[in-house]
Amino acid sequence: VSASAIRADLATLLGAESVLPDVPSHYLVDATESRGIRGRADAVVLPETSEDVARAMAWCYAHGVPIVPRGGGTGFAGGAVPIAGAIVLGLERLRQVRAVEPLAWRMHVEAGVPTAMVRRLARENGLFFPPDPGAAEQSHIGGNIATNAGGPHAFKYGVTGEWVLGVEAVVPPGELVTFGGPVRKDAAGYDLTSLLVGSEGTLGVITGAWLGLVPAPETTLSVAAFYPGLERGCEAVEEVISSGVALAALDFLDGGALTAAASSFPGDVPEGAAFLVLADADGSAAEAARVRDDAVEVLGLGALRVDAPSDQKSAAAIWSWRDGVSLAVTARHGGKLSEDVVVPLERLREAIEGTLEIGARHGLEACTWGHAGDGNLHSTFMFAREDEEAVARAEAAANELFSLAVALGGSISGEHGIGVTKREGLALQWPPRVLALHGAVKHAFDPENLLNPGKGL
Amino acid sequence: VSASAIRADLATLLGAESVLPDVPSHYLVDATESRGIRGRADAVVLPETSEDVARAMAWCYAHGVPIVPRGGGTGFAGGAVPIAGAIVLGLERLRQVRAVEPLAWRMHVEAGVPTAMVRRLARENGLFFPPDPGAAEQSHIGGNIATNAGGPHAFKYGVTGEWVLGVEAVVPPGELVTFGGPVRKDAAGYDLTSLLVGSEGTLGVITGAWLGLVPAPETTLSVAAFYPGLERGCEAVEEVISSGVALAALDFLDGGALTAAASSFPGDVPEGAAFLVLADADGSAAEAARVRDDAVEVLGLGALRVDAPSDQKSAAAIWSWRDGVSLAVTARHGGKLSEDVVVPLERLREAIEGTLEIGARHGLEACTWGHAGDGNLHSTFMFAREDEEAVARAEAAANELFSLAVALGGSISGEHGIGVTKREGLALQWPPRVLALHGAVKHAFDPENLLNPGKGL
Repeated sequence: VSASAIRADLATLLGAESVLPDVPSHYLVDATESRGIRGRADAVVLPETSEDVARAMAWCYAHGVPIVPRGGGTGFAGGAVPIAGAIVLGLERLRQVRAVEPLAWRMHVEAGVPTAMVRRLARENGLFFPPDPGAAEQSHIGGNIATNAGGPHAFKYGVTGEWVLGVEAVVPPGELVTFGGPVRKDAAGYDLTSLLVGSEGTLGVITGAWLGLVPAPETTLSVAAFYPGLERGCEAVEEVISSGVALAALDFLDGGALTAAASSFPGDVPEGAAFLVLADADGSAAEAARVRDDAVEVLGLGALRVDAPSDQKSAAAIWSWRDGVSLAVTARHGGKLSEDVVVPLERLREAIEGTLEIGARHGLEACTWGHAGDGNLHSTFMFAREDEEAVARAEAAANELFSLAVALGGSISGEHGIGVTKREGLALQWPPRVLALHGAVKHAFDPENLLNPGKGL
Repeated sequence: VSASAIRADLATLLGAESVLPDVPSHYLVDATESRGIRGRADAVVLPETSEDVARAMAWCYAHGVPIVPRGGGTGFAGGAVPIAGAIVLGLERLRQVRAVEPLAWRMHVEAGVPTAMVRRLARENGLFFPPDPGAAEQSHIGGNIATNAGGPHAFKYGVTGEWVLGVEAVVPPGELVTFGGPVRKDAAGYDLTSLLVGSEGTLGVITGAWLGLVPAPETTLSVAAFYPGLERGCEAVEEVISSGVALAALDFLDGGALTAAASSFPGDVPEGAAFLVLADADGSAAEAARVRDDAVEVLGLGALRVDAPSDQKSAAAIWSWRDGVSLAVTARHGGKLSEDVVVPLERLREAIEGTLEIGARHGLEACTWGHAGDGNLHSTFMFAREDEEAVARAEAAANELFSLAVALGGSISGEHGIGVTKREGLALQWPPRVLALHGAVKHAFDPENLLNPGKGL
């Protein structure tokens, strides 16, 4: 089918305003653009309703045209990049908040609602939607569900999927269905809701979701503890966990990441600091203060300095700075490749050291930051953006990193998914039978392989 | 294949001590026995290791012999009953605690470890395994995972699946694999771990699991609030939730359930009481007291009496009594049929009233108790155990109850699963395409339909 025929047919079906006249280039990339990942598409379709998504998929399924669903386009694994040619199906016009039901700690939203808006709406109603991925203003809740996005506060509250009560999705060959719903428990049949969560648009197109909420914590207090080196820093992480301090978040920056981001830290970074632990305590005012005090006591052992601002504003400033770490690391050499491997907690130090060793072997400056409490690292190799040879070395380094994560008993992805960047990686982690089951599940949902082809496996 | 050949071959393969010489009758029933659900089996196999489970399944798959996996046999949906003839594969000898890792808030256990033992081991290490299904001493963690068991404290902590980091399972045609592992996050590929959770032995036989733990709450305090009727009781439930009181558990008993269990309540039940709300507050001593006080204030409005013992022992006594409610209701007429439907929180009252109406239409005394905060009811129809005609009326009533739950926007199962008792029910709840996907997933894992046939769908 020619691109013009695709556009004409879909415009007839969905209305002209739902099919863009051309293919704007930003629909062909996501946050992997600096790694040179770029797709091509025959059309960009922006349906207005879930029913239109079903109509579009039915047409595509009837004509053998691949579909790449797209949320906010902030993914780090290339999941939304149309690598195999296709129509890009953007969910950005599905922005209705169908219901905010604070009395039942619940919200019903369409896929294109920005995650930050979900969080704001919850807050305005005295409630809290805990998932806090990095690009909450740009990313959509549908995309966050499709990638099972994480964030610092997943340490206490779990990742996005744990807050999804049900999803509305269009499944091949173009039927609008729901999995789960506005209920807090559901033991009827297989957990197909969880199967859709994190499936990266390869099983169905998520068009809406029922989200669970909790009462908003009254207070959040933060702690920043600086250490002279990796060894003491990782010991502090283990000690604060083994002491049973029930933190809401427990992040870290190694020496390289800290150096890259130091100049914008609110306050100064003490001389000789080569590891930073960031912790959050939340709850009632008294509870947050108690947990914060416990954390200060444990994290203080061997620390160069511990900052524990008593006001929430200073706490918020530390986390705003934390949000900017990725950009600060990018700024160091102009480009970077950052992966989201996860390891058992007790292997954190080995994973951080291993990242440096792999980088050194490939002649790349490396650093790591991430979610210490979840054993979830953002292991990063830096390069000049225009240095194609260095980019290739970084890709090779990333493959070694995946092998390291698996060797340490971990996973190649803690929060970004597989997308296109880690397609080879699953075979490191899973035996052939599990890979085959994964493929069989895909086939059960999408026998023609038209949903986001080339992703996942 | 004859029963004697099955036993002889499996004895050769697994050792004579792993195959029982006959079929003890308790392997043919579970907690649905009083409803007349009983199976038949050619052999009872009790493997000693996960590898032996794989060997047994490989033999069964090669010979076309169905397998019914069995944990503690405490299920309420007949999931472990070998209704289609088969070998019963009991996991009771897989009792090893492979690792207790308190420093990483983690445990690695085999499927046959009783859930109560998991909870005790966690407690002995200052940690907490939250899932608290009714028969924790008898049920196994493997069975709890295979049914995604709930319990009162799921209100705060979620159901069993939320605490499963990974499972070890034998999948057809007899391969031992793992899904997930000792990590707190995993976004690599489809969430096959969650697919195994709650699959009732129809996709694979769970042989072990990595479980997540949290620091143990220092204190748990309970509140019992008595109301003159259903209306005020349900209002109180809604008010305590909409007030944002972060309770750990929020259970209820309606008038009928309260009457049945009143005589053993610790303390007396006030005259005219026709609804009871039971709430738990946990956390640090100060936090538990604060939440308890908030709950007392909100639940006190319109209550006949509110008990809020300040000591944990009295709190524990209330929950011990709560554990006995099911038995007390059974004792009233000798038999009962109790289902675990779930509805959106705001439909709780309609579901309780509807249960009474359905019972009345079928000439059956009815009552309801359950997990109010999760909208999860144990809707119950009582009968004399020997009255077969009344049992048949109760089964018809249960089908109406399923329709009611679906009509209210809920699910036919909140925590017991589908098993054999609700096979017809899924079609009420799911459209044909979702039923077909469910079937396709089953086929992908178990193409010969030898794993727990006749269950689920």
